[in-house]
Amino acid sequence: MTDFICDYNTGCHPAILRELERTNMEPVRGYGNDRFCASAAEKIKKAFSCPDGQVEFLVGGTQTNQLVISSMLTQTDGVVSAATGHVNAHESGAIEITGHKVISLPQHNGKLCAKEVREYFELFYGDENHEHMVYPGMVYISFPTEYGTLYSLKELEDQKAVCTDFNVPLFIDGARLGYGLMSDRCDVKPEDISRIADVFYVGGTKVGALCGEAVVFTHGNRPARFTGLKKQRGALLAKGRLLGIQFDVLFTDNLYFEIAKNAIDRAMDVKKTLSDRGYEFLLDSPTNQQFVILEDGFYKKLSQKVGIEFWEKTDENHTAVRFATSWATTEKDVRELERILDCQEI
Amino acid sequence: MTDFICDYNTGCHPAILRELERTNMEPVRGYGNDRFCASAAEKIKKAFSCPDGQVEFLVGGTQTNQLVISSMLTQTDGVVSAATGHVNAHESGAIEITGHKVISLPQHNGKLCAKEVREYFELFYGDENHEHMVYPGMVYISFPTEYGTLYSLKELEDQKAVCTDFNVPLFIDGARLGYGLMSDRCDVKPEDISRIADVFYVGGTKVGALCGEAVVFTHGNRPARFTGLKKQRGALLAKGRLLGIQFDVLFTDNLYFEIAKNAIDRAMDVKKTLSDRGYEFLLDSPTNQQFVILEDGFYKKLSQKVGIEFWEKTDENHTAVRFATSWATTEKDVRELERILDCQEI
Amino acid sequence: MTDFICDYNTGCHPAILRELERTNMEPVRGYGNDRFCASAAEKIKKAFSCPDGQVEFLVGGTQTNQLVISSMLTQTDGVVSAATGHVNAHESGAIEITGHKVISLPQHNGKLCAKEVREYFELFYGDENHEHMVYPGMVYISFPTEYGTLYSLKELEDQKAVCTDFNVPLFIDGARLGYGLMSDRCDVKPEDISRIADVFYVGGTKVGALCGEAVVFTHGNRPARFTGLKKQRGALLAKGRLLGIQFDVLFTDNLYFEIAKNAIDRAMDVKKTLSDRGYEFLLDSPTNQQFVILEDGFYKKLSQKVGIEFWEKTDENHTAVRFATSWATTEKDVRELERILDCQEI
Amino acid sequence: MTDFICDYNTGCHPAILRELERTNMEPVRGYGNDRFCASAAEKIKKAFSCPDGQVEFLVGGTQTNQLVISSMLTQTDGVVSAATGHVNAHESGAIEITGHKVISLPQHNGKLCAKEVREYFELFYGDENHEHMVYPGMVYISFPTEYGTLYSLKELEDQKAVCTDFNVPLFIDGARLGYGLMSDRCDVKPEDISRIADVFYVGGTKVGALCGEAVVFTHGNRPARFTGLKKQRGALLAKGRLLGIQFDVLFTDNLYFEIAKNAIDRAMDVKKTLSDRGYEFLLDSPTNQQFVILEDGFYKKLSQKVGIEFWEKTDENHTAVRFATSWATTEKDVRELERILDCQEI
Repeated sequence: MTDFICDYNTGCHPAILRELERTNMEPVRGYGNDRFCASAAEKIKKAFSCPDGQVEFLVGGTQTNQLVISSMLTQTDGVVSAATGHVNAHESGAIEITGHKVISLPQHNGKLCAKEVREYFELFYGDENHEHMVYPGMVYISFPTEYGTLYSLKELEDQKAVCTDFNVPLFIDGARLGYGLMSDRCDVKPEDISRIADVFYVGGTKVGALCGEAVVFTHGNRPARFTGLKKQRGALLAKGRLLGIQFDVLFTDNLYFEIAKNAIDRAMDVKKTLSDRGYEFLLDSPTNQQFVILEDGFYKKLSQKVGIEFWEKTDENHTAVRFATSWATTEKDVRELERILDCQEI
Repeated sequence: MTDFICDYNTGCHPAILRELERTNMEPVRGYGNDRFCASAAEKIKKAFSCPDGQVEFLVGGTQTNQLVISSMLTQTDGVVSAATGHVNAHESGAIEITGHKVISLPQHNGKLCAKEVREYFELFYGDENHEHMVYPGMVYISFPTEYGTLYSLKELEDQKAVCTDFNVPLFIDGARLGYGLMSDRCDVKPEDISRIADVFYVGGTKVGALCGEAVVFTHGNRPARFTGLKKQRGALLAKGRLLGIQFDVLFTDNLYFEIAKNAIDRAMDVKKTLSDRGYEFLLDSPTNQQFVILEDGFYKKLSQKVGIEFWEKTDENHTAVRFATSWATTEKDVRELERILDCQEI
Repeated sequence: MTDFICDYNTGCHPAILRELERTNMEPVRGYGNDRFCASAAEKIKKAFSCPDGQVEFLVGGTQTNQLVISSMLTQTDGVVSAATGHVNAHESGAIEITGHKVISLPQHNGKLCAKEVREYFELFYGDENHEHMVYPGMVYISFPTEYGTLYSLKELEDQKAVCTDFNVPLFIDGARLGYGLMSDRCDVKPEDISRIADVFYVGGTKVGALCGEAVVFTHGNRPARFTGLKKQRGALLAKGRLLGIQFDVLFTDNLYFEIAKNAIDRAMDVKKTLSDRGYEFLLDSPTNQQFVILEDGFYKKLSQKVGIEFWEKTDENHTAVRFATSWATTEKDVRELERILDCQEI
Repeated sequence: MTDFICDYNTGCHPAILRELERTNMEPVRGYGNDRFCASAAEKIKKAFSCPDGQVEFLVGGTQTNQLVISSMLTQTDGVVSAATGHVNAHESGAIEITGHKVISLPQHNGKLCAKEVREYFELFYGDENHEHMVYPGMVYISFPTEYGTLYSLKELEDQKAVCTDFNVPLFIDGARLGYGLMSDRCDVKPEDISRIADVFYVGGTKVGALCGEAVVFTHGNRPARFTGLKKQRGALLAKGRLLGIQFDVLFTDNLYFEIAKNAIDRAMDVKKTLSDRGYEFLLDSPTNQQFVILEDGFYKKLSQKVGIEFWEKTDENHTAVRFATSWATTEKDVRELERILDCQEI
């Protein structure tokens, strides 16, 4: 079945498997103390122009969000997120289980508005006492967002300005970072990410790896005893090489960005395919996730032929569904989608 | 350098890489809802004669211990472990961070004594009130233990009897389960493990996988909403196939047990090599970890030539070190160790 | 200074002090195992027509909310609250620190709307999978609310129906329960509270006690090992008598309700006083908290003469402030307020 | 019945009730922002010669231990305690629920041995890596201990030296501090406590108050946003005056120490009474708790006549029981004990 159900439905980029095989029997130290992790870290720091960065490899996105947020917040603080932010909506309470509130502010196409964030912070530093409320101790944004949208460079700078003014870190969840940076509509460069974020991560799982996210603390601000913190959360891989090798491959010869570009190209193909045929979109996404509104009967039939994901009901008879492309999506996949849409079958 | 430093120093069994490659571009559902996980689960249930078992795949050992223990204990309970148990000593507080005490009882060559466990439980059910103490709500044992030792079938049955009498689950940490079951001195069979344990796991990371542990709830006792619990702890892999494929390979044609047997054979070679040359052992281990006591000067020199791990100081001038073999250790590795021990170099 | 700043600004009803003195040297068992707690529990069960109730005494409201919610939710669940609910807004994250999300739904004059609560629950039980979201596992409402408003009996029944349909407990925070039940506009009786709530508490701190809240699990549903749970949260008072004696006095000869009635009468006096003079109210509160909108300059001057609490800014030049009455407020206090409002001083 | 069952079996010193009554109707700000708390804090700082101390009032001992330890430890750290320390043995896991391990070291008559503590710390700062272990981040001692024993000044200085050398705080649990300082065998003065401890608390519950413990951070080291931390743990009393008034009374005219002295005098009377009659003691306690070994049959009969507490079984036919005196114990109580022991009744 043609499959646009998510961006983690296939394995990994073949070059990763080749390198896993090539290095397989070389004995190295465990827990990330190996030459692959060291090399990958250097390459990532270079790709993001972040010489003072500290790179840590973790297994998955929720794990990363949980560990980064819980290790950087003080006990009385919460993390500010858009209502639709992954940490607020789709992690089964992974932040709360560490004892911290997710302070949700309104989302605008998946994004936080810097002005609203500023107003929220100002509440806590005015005349009145707010010691019975959870202090906002960090701002979390995803780039791209859960709706595939992007912050402009100006918007990121504005978020950063709030964080700077109130002395809290800005965390950019880059589970799909490559798909954001390679969008035609993106005016943000890798070096902007590392300059603006206090901590961010480069998503591997959704961008060509079997698993893995590379966290970058951008200016020597990695929490103390981070290895212990990883271990304590069950996030320390014994065979750290598995992560190091993958990121080493992805950040060799620009591979990460090139395969991300493929996803964008195919997403634009899908967008055009659907748009040409008159389908309406939930919003205008410039990245690899496209949200289309389908009549329920048609959705039901289409989903027998094409892997697509339920997103939300938009009214009694319509549903927004997600078409996701990835590094692995081919032009042939899109043509097959066209064929299905145009044939009499449905 | 010849390397006996641990059993996770190399990659994975080549058959796993082959299968990852063969299936790489097949799109499947995420989060473990794929045919590989389903197939692997069936094979594991068969290998352990556990038709009612519920199998869950997780990434690493500490993560597994944390999730299993925290999801099975009630809030006022703690888990009983030998003082040297992994959960008590070497997980950076991964159990405590979930809000539960590890109740440590004395270790005897790494093992809990069933009689002492029983006496501890009896305390709580006598005349006096113990509501200000943490109740023992689970028994955790590792098989093999952190010292490479094994419980006899009789000893396991005794532990189980205590658990049955006090109505708490018995959890067997099988991070090195294959290495235990394939020991010549082991009188426990796979079907004994699944009959005796309420929950156990089959370690993959240390027995031929890149990562991964397969948890088995042996009698329909998997905690409710286990997927949510996994997600909440950052333990749910988006590409669950990575775990499913590995265990599917390991449990095809008895591969898991065969490669475990190799580790035991090589460990016995190492043991003989050291024993023949008069070295003393910290204790008599029948599995893949051998603990040898070395004079400190010699230890320092030897560790320049051979990968070995510091274990503990035994007196002012001596150190116990660990030689670990694995599925990947070869006869050539042992011969190289012999050569180094016998040459004038050290 | 005339003081309407809160309902916990004075000590306790004199009858409590007299009873503390009368019983002071009588030795009793600790931790609530005393005759005073037993007697108070019986009286509360009687006052609320709740023969199967289990009564527990705790020290304060946040402690009570934390303990009740954390002990009744399963790990993957959160508690549903109005955005303005005390547990969501003013407890410094006391629920989140126990690992649970507060799921905030829109507030309507401080109240949850049963229809909206139902729709939220339905999300989780439709066709689609929501295992990556926090399940709603309890509904929390305050009676009266943080804005002094009341649910009608019909509204409470509707909330209960949702809870029954989705099999989750309904928790009524009664920090000011007396002030709600004694309002002229209240059509809810004590027996309705215990019939509708699965668990509720009778606030003492704000209704005449020095400290203390009496939790009632209404139908034998007290969590197991509740004493241990109390101890674990630092909520078990060694001298439990302090709580037992206070509630025993408050529930003798209807004292609790009588003194609550005084607060309502004085609140209506204050309301009339302000209303007669043309002040606008933030909303129409029928209980002991009255929220009045004042011009900022006037607010500043008035607060030099009368104890009132900042509530929120309503626009650039106006502030909503709270006037709270209590069991201890006198007619003289209200006359003094009138005098201040009418004099030339401000 | 003559009652030696515990030191919290009666109410409070009458002077406290008188002051509660005298100040009852005076309106003050909530949450400890009142003149009583301010005055009490000053008096405590003076009594302990601790001008830079920061005093916080809390309700009970377990709550205090939980809040102090969890707010001063970093996430990867645990607290070192004697195996018999209250936080390790008798708080239902109140420390673990905050995510921290209690690292239990051997007890010697209830005390930690500074040399053993030092050796434990040295483990973590030697050549080998211990990042998979919980770091010792604080030392907890109780004074007097749970067995009524006392550290000598020299022993306290030795504990402090370890803490200074490894840069961790020393926390002294003074739930019975008065009973320790007033012992004839105590060579420690109040000013030694505040000089040696980084944080300690002055127990009120067991020394004449209805409830309450006064924590002193001795050198400006109170954790940031401590009010929020208190609120978050359910430990912030709305009517903080209840605590302030009690400690203000106890630290007026040396009352705290005087009533503590009474408990010691009566304990020595009890000790002599039992010793003269040939009873054996579990250990030699110089404070208000006396542990006596009784034959089981006699224990059973005696406990019908005198309130005493089961402590532990010492062999198959004997039990150690505790006789506790308090500020409220009278000479008459002791004479009644003598009478019972000497009469034919038992």
